[in-house]
Amino acid sequence: MNSRKKDDFPTNKIRRFLEPGPIVLVSSAHAGERNIMTMGWHMMLGYDHIGCYIWDQNHSRELIRKSKECVFNVPTFDLIEAVIGTGNNHGPEIDKFETFGLTPEKAKQVDAPLIAECYANFECRLVDNSQAKKYSLFVFECVKAHVARSPKYPKTVHYRGDGGFMIAGENKSYRKKFKPEML
Amino acid sequence: MNSRKKDDFPTNKIRRFLEPGPIVLVSSAHAGERNIMTMGWHMMLGYDHIGCYIWDQNHSRELIRKSKECVFNVPTFDLIEAVIGTGNNHGPEIDKFETFGLTPEKAKQVDAPLIAECYANFECRLVDNSQAKKYSLFVFECVKAHVARSPKYPKTVHYRGDGGFMIAGENKSYRKKFKPEML
Repeated sequence: MNSRKKDDFPTNKIRRFLEPGPIVLVSSAHAGERNIMTMGWHMMLGYDHIGCYIWDQNHSRELIRKSKECVFNVPTFDLIEAVIGTGNNHGPEIDKFETFGLTPEKAKQVDAPLIAECYANFECRLVDNSQAKKYSLFVFECVKAHVARSPKYPKTVHYRGDGGFMIAGENKSYRKKFKPEML
Repeated sequence: MNSRKKDDFPTNKIRRFLEPGPIVLVSSAHAGERNIMTMGWHMMLGYDHIGCYIWDQNHSRELIRKSKECVFNVPTFDLIEAVIGTGNNHGPEIDKFETFGLTPEKAKQVDAPLIAECYANFECRLVDNSQAKKYSLFVFECVKAHVARSPKYPKTVHYRGDGGFMIAGENKSYRKKFKPEML
């Protein structure tokens, strides 16, 4: 698999890639350990904030809680085997980068590694974990974003449960039907 | 537009329709008023809980805050005009059901109306709004779910920003690659 050429991207526009609801790969690191988790339960929470669910059985939760940072990486359909593999294996037992052929790349603002093969990488800092015990809810602020130069619309994968995925389909613009202040 | 024949559906399996990240129409009612809002910022937060962002400028926020309930309705591509219309118009000024040809239907567990034309309807009770002021974050529990008998995979719409939508594409099963305990 190949790394992708990416440009810097405005952190307050990352909704373009997260709001459609793709599966993301969340990478994290702490004290010499690193991990990747597959995540489908996330949402925009303001234009440069992300809310997400991290189960207390996920090894990544500890790394993120301690390092207070992570990277949200957006994979495309060509990475489906790695997406399934990272979701079906438990963190400390294997190195998921090596096992699934993913390349860690140095981030700009955080110590957690980017995943080079992913379409987009959103470097994030943990800003709120007050609902972690009750709802496994974590809130992150995106501090740096990298997005591949092409294609314009990534062929993301969306989990339907029971081992099934929906692959991102056709794109249609309805721009003319929107009030200017709604765009 | 036609109403859809629906069956009761297990509330702890609604992730099948929400985790892929579709735009939802959230209906609410209080003291004789009713409204619909278009929402793209939502996530599963456990198997029968939903977290979502409701801006304090949304008229629906008041109705939901006061009634402590709402319905998450999942529209499909045939309803795109209603999806855009509800998102581009402000609540108190028009009746969105009448204006966009949507049919309110009596719910089973809540007083907020279902939207008959939508593929699925998830009746919800507000269980936590402690992060509403800080993050406009609300947590709901799904107490009753209705899902259309067909098709198996709805052609949902996913917002990319700037007036553009991704329409749900191909469905692929990778069930055999999943460990049984991960299904």
